[in-house]
Amino acid sequence: MRRLALNKAKQLLRPLCSSLLTTPIAASDLLSSSSPFCSSSSPSTAMSSTKTAPVSVDNINPKVVKCEYAVRGEIVILAQRLQQELQEKPGAHPFDEILYCNIGNPQSLGQQPITFFREVLALCDHPALLDKDQTHGLFSSDAIDRAWKILDVMPGRATGAYSHSQGIKGLRDLIAAGIAARDGFPANGDDIFLTDGASPAVRSLTLSQNKVILWVLKKYNWYLFQVHMMMQLLLRSEKDGILCPIPQYPLYSASIALHGGTLVPYYLNEETGWGLEISELKKQLDDARSKGVTVRALVVINPGNPTGQVLGEENQREIVEFCKAEGLVLLADEVYQENIYVEDKKFHSFKKVARSMGYGEEDVALVSFQSVSKGYYGECGKRGGYMELTGFAPEVREHIYKIASVNLCSNISGQILASLVMNPPQQGDESYESYVDERDGILSSLARRAKILEEAFNGMDGVSCNKAEGAMYLFPRLRLPRRAIEAAAAANTMPDTLYARRLLHATGIVLVPGSGFGQVPGTYHVRCTILPQEDKIPAIVSRLKDFHAAFMAEFRD
Amino acid sequence: MRRLALNKAKQLLRPLCSSLLTTPIAASDLLSSSSPFCSSSSPSTAMSSTKTAPVSVDNINPKVVKCEYAVRGEIVILAQRLQQELQEKPGAHPFDEILYCNIGNPQSLGQQPITFFREVLALCDHPALLDKDQTHGLFSSDAIDRAWKILDVMPGRATGAYSHSQGIKGLRDLIAAGIAARDGFPANGDDIFLTDGASPAVRSLTLSQNKVILWVLKKYNWYLFQVHMMMQLLLRSEKDGILCPIPQYPLYSASIALHGGTLVPYYLNEETGWGLEISELKKQLDDARSKGVTVRALVVINPGNPTGQVLGEENQREIVEFCKAEGLVLLADEVYQENIYVEDKKFHSFKKVARSMGYGEEDVALVSFQSVSKGYYGECGKRGGYMELTGFAPEVREHIYKIASVNLCSNISGQILASLVMNPPQQGDESYESYVDERDGILSSLARRAKILEEAFNGMDGVSCNKAEGAMYLFPRLRLPRRAIEAAAAANTMPDTLYARRLLHATGIVLVPGSGFGQVPGTYHVRCTILPQEDKIPAIVSRLKDFHAAFMAEFRD
Repeated sequence: MRRLALNKAKQLLRPLCSSLLTTPIAASDLLSSSSPFCSSSSPSTAMSSTKTAPVSVDNINPKVVKCEYAVRGEIVILAQRLQQELQEKPGAHPFDEILYCNIGNPQSLGQQPITFFREVLALCDHPALLDKDQTHGLFSSDAIDRAWKILDVMPGRATGAYSHSQGIKGLRDLIAAGIAARDGFPANGDDIFLTDGASPAVRSLTLSQNKVILWVLKKYNWYLFQVHMMMQLLLRSEKDGILCPIPQYPLYSASIALHGGTLVPYYLNEETGWGLEISELKKQLDDARSKGVTVRALVVINPGNPTGQVLGEENQREIVEFCKAEGLVLLADEVYQENIYVEDKKFHSFKKVARSMGYGEEDVALVSFQSVSKGYYGECGKRGGYMELTGFAPEVREHIYKIASVNLCSNISGQILASLVMNPPQQGDESYESYVDERDGILSSLARRAKILEEAFNGMDGVSCNKAEGAMYLFPRLRLPRRAIEAAAAANTMPDTLYARRLLHATGIVLVPGSGFGQVPGTYHVRCTILPQEDKIPAIVSRLKDFHAAFMAEFRD
Repeated sequence: MRRLALNKAKQLLRPLCSSLLTTPIAASDLLSSSSPFCSSSSPSTAMSSTKTAPVSVDNINPKVVKCEYAVRGEIVILAQRLQQELQEKPGAHPFDEILYCNIGNPQSLGQQPITFFREVLALCDHPALLDKDQTHGLFSSDAIDRAWKILDVMPGRATGAYSHSQGIKGLRDLIAAGIAARDGFPANGDDIFLTDGASPAVRSLTLSQNKVILWVLKKYNWYLFQVHMMMQLLLRSEKDGILCPIPQYPLYSASIALHGGTLVPYYLNEETGWGLEISELKKQLDDARSKGVTVRALVVINPGNPTGQVLGEENQREIVEFCKAEGLVLLADEVYQENIYVEDKKFHSFKKVARSMGYGEEDVALVSFQSVSKGYYGECGKRGGYMELTGFAPEVREHIYKIASVNLCSNISGQILASLVMNPPQQGDESYESYVDERDGILSSLARRAKILEEAFNGMDGVSCNKAEGAMYLFPRLRLPRRAIEAAAAANTMPDTLYARRLLHATGIVLVPGSGFGQVPGTYHVRCTILPQEDKIPAIVSRLKDFHAAFMAEFRD
């Protein structure tokens, strides 16, 4: 039964993940992992005598040795190797730096943090400042007020102690107030679960399962514990399924596989700007049900990752109606809610949409995921995030709390930061204007970068690229020559992986092959972040274009 | 084979853990966990119709429902329930607050953070302060200098980005410098692995194994990832063993069980102040070898947890000699290195002891674990720690790095703080005197508290308590009446658990039953932290004494 479930999950996961790996996945890898790190079984090496070196490559865990770097993505491993070669021998490659366009880590690429947020964090780290007169000359008055407000809600004002498992109540209340202000509908601090950005948590969790999931989670790691809790709650067996978009940010497929459920895919329509169509949802739902799968929830990523689309409000209403009619929990991945780059689209939370339709707690169960690593703030190093749950019965929430409490608290700075991003300075606050300048400066720059890169991709032979209406990525489609596809097959890799590998070798630019996210069979994509600083974009565009032209010329049919 | 290994680990683990749980451990729990949270298998509930509530207690994962609170310690669960009852109905119990003497979370009990460390953290959180004149009036000059020094070693001065998997190189170099200054022997930043305090990491990792380990890790959670990496490296099968002290902080037993190795116990001698005797090590080693176990490493906790003993330097030399002669890796848990309370003992790192014996990298493989949650700093909320590895061949270290890199970086503040605790202000620095005052104030107060509590325990009928020479705990032995032991058996619990439960009900004081740490069969202990603030100690002592007298009177044979 368990084996069946994992086989099924594995099959669904394979198209998403297998090309990310240097070795194919065996079903046994998913099952019999005795090492939490690496699951390939192998005969024991001979025991060393106690008189030889106590630790040598010959007498450490052979699974660790054999693991190689299969746990990391091929392209990223290659990038790290090239970077090291450049350091050791400048001029060794036809580029002088590696350009990481594969991961949403904005501050590593020069994005500056938002001053107000960092002011408050500094004051909370060193509250003694608040008692000193000079502090008023150094910090904005609203940062000082905010720090007091935060310290006042912390038990004993202790910023160095573990907290309540769901997060500090006062900070959850502040987040709820921020949500209410955003949506115009009430929110409740008891509905908020603060998590640690969850990167180490869930990556390690998956260590004990298999290397596929491991790698996925290493690359995509922000708010996974939230997702994981919901999958754990909802999935009873492989007969329970979750509707997930394809292409998708693969944490959903990984988490479903981990919990032995069934991924029920629905395809976004690339032709209509990665449109989410209710007819497709319905078709896949009916199909899954006809196979005996009880579909428990629908995952929607808005703004989309890797696709960058922003759902229209009318479309969101249809989705809410669909979930209500079909009895599905709506799992809304809303971590890019601040990242919108087009005039004609706005972010609306699914909760706001549901409430504006007159639907309350009893009508639809909603979960909203949010993270401090995204938005214009991009605080990946701080590890903070929350999920808001509504429409769950009190006795179910008790069980959710129970799962949350296994994880103790998230780090305190991450909790404080989550309360800040949901309550930025308001008009009339001393920081307001500089805050708006910083925020809009970052967002408008991201919008310009998205536009330039999109146009660049669309200007290339055989490439079409939807607009990045939001999020941080472009997901251009590559129409590759038959000979390139054959060359990939000969090299035992996916065509988009071949493309990304060749691109990296030629230019130092790191993209993620589309096969990591799932795509309509026979189509090929790459994901490219819009995060490199603006002054680097022209060089990136020029290198991308030159490489693409050369690649197409080389493989022209 | 795998089953055998786990059975063996389980048997060794059982005496350590079983009494911490409300339900006994089944071997299958250790093996077949399909849910990462709770492993009891159970029949699926009937599928709900899609027209009923999408999520109810009847249609969530039954393993989550059935899990109850077995994952938490019985005493802690009870304490939380009583606390809630007190909040809802003051006067409901014969005490007005819960006194948590069970966990080393100093700042939650009123301990203040060290000003210098928090100054530097604040400046690193908001580096713009460093460009302003007024900052000099508000922060000590050495904190400003230190912040510059730290920012200068961070790539792009980015405190909001992910870092190198082993930790930021410059911070590791600072830590190595601090170690060299402490020991008088060189240290190397490449030998340092910074970890996240590892609480969420490893607790979640163990989710996928079983609830026993889960609970243990929830309570004991600071530097587990470090330990875990080493166990993963060293343990190839159940034929590989690790020598571990009994009683012990149970993360070692948990981690060994997790990796399918064999725990080889050695007993500390309570009669000689929890002495570590080489004859006992040798006896257990030979015994394990005669059973075909290859012993790979020796764990030493110094200062001891839960025992509080501090090893003498001569004893440490014998231990190093033993490891060298027997070809064992020495895993030195040195997280309480700053917590020494007696004049006649000093902390010596095992590395310093080995080097002072003339032993270098090639003679003995050493690992030292350190954490920012302990010491006089007690920064549990910050999550920082490191391990220093020496005596490992470069190709083995490559594999260790590979394991580390699965975990991405630890949070940046935790990394910075680890560099600070290893490099506190020095004589001549502006902060030096206030730093020394704060540090010594905390340590001398802890010493007074340890003394008062020790004397209190020793003054009780049938109780004997070794001195807390170091660390944060007392581990008094309770000689319980036969009738109390029978009452525990009748209640299906351990006698020390019965004692702790009754104490909590009567006084609100939370202690950890000794059976959680392992003890000589037929002996009973409790662990009590020395952390409650001094003004609360008299009331605690008086309640402990009154309770103990009443308990003994009730069960007198």
